[in-house]
Amino acid sequence: MNKEAVLHHPSFQYAYACTKNSIQLRIRTKKSDLQSISLLFGDGFDWHDGKWNYQQQAVTKNGSCELFDYWEITLNPPNRRLRYAFILESKEERLFYCEKGFYTDVIYDPGYYFCFPFLHEHEEFQTPDWVKDTIWYQIFPERFANGNSSNDPEDTLAWNSADPTPTNHFGGDIEGITAHLDYLQELGINGIYLTPIFKAYSNHKYDTIDYLAIDPNFGDEAAFKTMVEECHKRGIRVMLDAVFNHSGFYFPPFQDVLEKGEKSKYKDWFHIHEFPIQTEPKANYHTFAFTPFMPKLNTAHPEVKEYLLNVATHWIEKYDIDGWRLDVANEVDHEFWREFRKAVRSVKEDVYILGELWHDSTPWLYGDQFDSVMNYPFQTNVLDLFVRDRLTPKQFKEKMTSVYYMYPKPITEVLFNLVGSHDTPRILTECKDSVEDVKLILTLLLTYEGSPCIYYGDEIGLTGGMDPGCRKCMPWDEAEYNLDLLDHTKKLIALRKREGLLRNQGTLTWMEHEGLLLFKVTEEEKSIYVLINPTLDEQHVTLEASDGHTQWHDEWQNKAYATTASVQVTVPKKQFAILSSK
Amino acid sequence: MNKEAVLHHPSFQYAYACTKNSIQLRIRTKKSDLQSISLLFGDGFDWHDGKWNYQQQAVTKNGSCELFDYWEITLNPPNRRLRYAFILESKEERLFYCEKGFYTDVIYDPGYYFCFPFLHEHEEFQTPDWVKDTIWYQIFPERFANGNSSNDPEDTLAWNSADPTPTNHFGGDIEGITAHLDYLQELGINGIYLTPIFKAYSNHKYDTIDYLAIDPNFGDEAAFKTMVEECHKRGIRVMLDAVFNHSGFYFPPFQDVLEKGEKSKYKDWFHIHEFPIQTEPKANYHTFAFTPFMPKLNTAHPEVKEYLLNVATHWIEKYDIDGWRLDVANEVDHEFWREFRKAVRSVKEDVYILGELWHDSTPWLYGDQFDSVMNYPFQTNVLDLFVRDRLTPKQFKEKMTSVYYMYPKPITEVLFNLVGSHDTPRILTECKDSVEDVKLILTLLLTYEGSPCIYYGDEIGLTGGMDPGCRKCMPWDEAEYNLDLLDHTKKLIALRKREGLLRNQGTLTWMEHEGLLLFKVTEEEKSIYVLINPTLDEQHVTLEASDGHTQWHDEWQNKAYATTASVQVTVPKKQFAILSSK
Repeated sequence: MNKEAVLHHPSFQYAYACTKNSIQLRIRTKKSDLQSISLLFGDGFDWHDGKWNYQQQAVTKNGSCELFDYWEITLNPPNRRLRYAFILESKEERLFYCEKGFYTDVIYDPGYYFCFPFLHEHEEFQTPDWVKDTIWYQIFPERFANGNSSNDPEDTLAWNSADPTPTNHFGGDIEGITAHLDYLQELGINGIYLTPIFKAYSNHKYDTIDYLAIDPNFGDEAAFKTMVEECHKRGIRVMLDAVFNHSGFYFPPFQDVLEKGEKSKYKDWFHIHEFPIQTEPKANYHTFAFTPFMPKLNTAHPEVKEYLLNVATHWIEKYDIDGWRLDVANEVDHEFWREFRKAVRSVKEDVYILGELWHDSTPWLYGDQFDSVMNYPFQTNVLDLFVRDRLTPKQFKEKMTSVYYMYPKPITEVLFNLVGSHDTPRILTECKDSVEDVKLILTLLLTYEGSPCIYYGDEIGLTGGMDPGCRKCMPWDEAEYNLDLLDHTKKLIALRKREGLLRNQGTLTWMEHEGLLLFKVTEEEKSIYVLINPTLDEQHVTLEASDGHTQWHDEWQNKAYATTASVQVTVPKKQFAILSSK
Repeated sequence: MNKEAVLHHPSFQYAYACTKNSIQLRIRTKKSDLQSISLLFGDGFDWHDGKWNYQQQAVTKNGSCELFDYWEITLNPPNRRLRYAFILESKEERLFYCEKGFYTDVIYDPGYYFCFPFLHEHEEFQTPDWVKDTIWYQIFPERFANGNSSNDPEDTLAWNSADPTPTNHFGGDIEGITAHLDYLQELGINGIYLTPIFKAYSNHKYDTIDYLAIDPNFGDEAAFKTMVEECHKRGIRVMLDAVFNHSGFYFPPFQDVLEKGEKSKYKDWFHIHEFPIQTEPKANYHTFAFTPFMPKLNTAHPEVKEYLLNVATHWIEKYDIDGWRLDVANEVDHEFWREFRKAVRSVKEDVYILGELWHDSTPWLYGDQFDSVMNYPFQTNVLDLFVRDRLTPKQFKEKMTSVYYMYPKPITEVLFNLVGSHDTPRILTECKDSVEDVKLILTLLLTYEGSPCIYYGDEIGLTGGMDPGCRKCMPWDEAEYNLDLLDHTKKLIALRKREGLLRNQGTLTWMEHEGLLLFKVTEEEKSIYVLINPTLDEQHVTLEASDGHTQWHDEWQNKAYATTASVQVTVPKKQFAILSSK
């Protein structure tokens, strides 16, 4: 047995409150090394006649990545406390594994065991319920729609008359979004995420000047209020972008420091190395990246905290927004985010908090900071499989499994899955204009566990390279739409909304297949199977329904499929199937 | 290479702020599997002419446990941001290891790398400075000294006239402690930790009746005030015991619930399953263990929180205590402890927060809750080596190393090391009355990294089995002291106070030796070597001073030892040596 590969610790992704009354435990072992695992467990204080009262139960292997197998078990300890240890069995060996290490003999003393001290009801990972059911749509306001030409910047170009540059304008605004809510409703999405809308200098608005004002080129507070109300009428949630890591260069407090130097009352609002301030040849203050135009805010300073937390609650209290996406979230200190969570949750109980993180996000997901993070690895894996030929279907499955077990399941269920954003090339462009690949990718995005997000225009086949290319105007002329792709997207969204198993209500398991992306989601009586064929060959598979189920349904065509215990499915090249059994 | 054994993640014990300006990184590999590791690192935004600007530096192997090697490197990134990846070299293989996994070729794209997003000054793990220099002394007040017989319980027995039972009394009190501060000062300790002193029913006082009153049998507020003042005059810090997981049965709010049932305004202060309340045959409310006399407090309830946080600040504000030891700390919810930290730190900046945890304490040590935890594994390892014959010196070193790398170094430096408490048999009794073993054990305790604690009376050879046996009266009659042990303890304490390297001011490394416990602590010019021989054979070792140092000093005898580059040291059976080189 490869003991060095065995990993468990009694916290985070390996031991967590799964519901208010149940604890989920996981353990990682070297791939294909073990034949079975069982758990010895009980209440550490439950002794009778000098003997500890324990139970034993099998732990199930639920997934495998390139190097490891992942095993899982769920328990409902009546006294909410748990001591536990594992019995690991390989072909050659049987080992007892507990907090103090490996032993050849089983030890029946819970003092040696792992400890889950107490399952507190409120320590269940608490994400707003609605998020699991939400299909997001990301909007870059300057390019979505121009609803009011009176607020256009002076240099506004005719809509969609040119390629986007880092500085040009096309007049997109808030009223433009409101005017096209029928389109979004018909598409089926039920959440919109807007990149920044506050007063700023650039066209992307990530360099805030006034956190409490709508950018005048985007409209005014009344227009925004109307937009949120119209969204809510249609059951669409609204998430805004909070750029709290840094301000813009023209943020008045920073201008005050530029002007008054050490005498400015705002001098500690930023991280200034020395006075006088200089921006050339290199800023002598911390910035986002090396951009002197984005001075980093000192979020540990009480006045900055108070200012930004007030911003965070203002837009909720006054406009009833439903979520905050946090820009460059990992470069802001944890204590700030802890206070942020308390502040926003105190004014709206079910507000959603999403961090922009591209890396391992564990330290932000202990339940005291964010609800979820942007799942960029989802995008990377998709592109590595469909576009870059870096992964086979089998390797793709392994990579996805590896991400799946990075976080507790309640977090995986709300990971913000995406295949493109304002920071990456368009998915159709990444796919070298292969619409059939994009259709498969959207099929995966909209059937997989998590909270999926569509970048505006991807559904109609908008193209564009790395920013600013990916920020083209939404054409609003059906002649320019790829209607096939749009229909496909609508149908997928409708299916996800119809079928709870595709909305994080079951247990997801990837199945073995060399040529197909094939996973199953199961809950009690029903299983749903998603089969995606990214290869240039026809793929065949036999699916076995469990427990004598024989009612097979084609979920994509929404019609009966078969009434046999097992079915043979053929998936043509670059096609997919979605079946269910019950 | 055993890839499955390789472990790094960009947080907690593997990547942390080591000082306000430096980041320490660690990586774990299979024992003896790798020959070298180097780090590729840089600022993720630092690109010139399309090329990323990186540096490369060796990572040092600093320790080994039974299964793993631990490697470490410290960096001072000028922009406080870091992207990094490892190059792992074994005899057969060279692999690039980054956040996305293992690659045979080096990748020079920081998008693949691990990310330490920003080193915030205040995210250095902040333990009060004084704790690293503190040698604690734990007092069980009912048994330390009777300073005022007028407050004795009615059934008080003559001092030390009987063995302790779960219920008998000997009249120990606060004034008794004050009266013996000269003794403690002479011993040399500079911190006392008192088990609970608040009004309670039992003799151990872990069943609080009134959190805001000194137990009448222990004295009054004036007596306590005097004690703290007298301690502070002598440079002795005072830590109290907070029993916030549960109250006593006679805590008025619980009595109110017992009396009024569902109508009690305190009904939500506890975790009551149903009304009417019953205590027999089994309590129908959550308790500590299965003890109906210790009802678990609902620390998520706002009123309970307010009440307990007020208790926590009251004893600091009014009596200037220096620390809180938190009983059954792991069964209280994290949010409560986060608020606790804020509350107590807001009234005294350098108050110390110590959790009673017997298990892996990671989730409480993210910097938002405790400063430190009781290091029971220290005690277990010591007993397994000296008493139970479960570990060889080599295995002991491995177990200690394993604990050493469980937490970031700033935490290891303040782990509350102990070899006995009111909850365990006396160390001399564990050692089957072998004073020479206890002397070696105290030598280790008082030279090792951490914040050591002596349980009252261990220094004079008090004996006793598991509680209540370990709670005997302190005799106060020199005729009953083991003066040899007392002198030994005093000399060790004096040495620790004289020599900064023994007070967590250096880097600790265990050295290879089959028969000796042998570690070195180094800082710049000086190294100190601790050699403890737990075996029944004489042990020999050659120590090599680094960098041409030849000034060897015998720290225990406090005299010159040799002036050669290397020295041969003989340690007789059950003896020790403490040398230094500079």
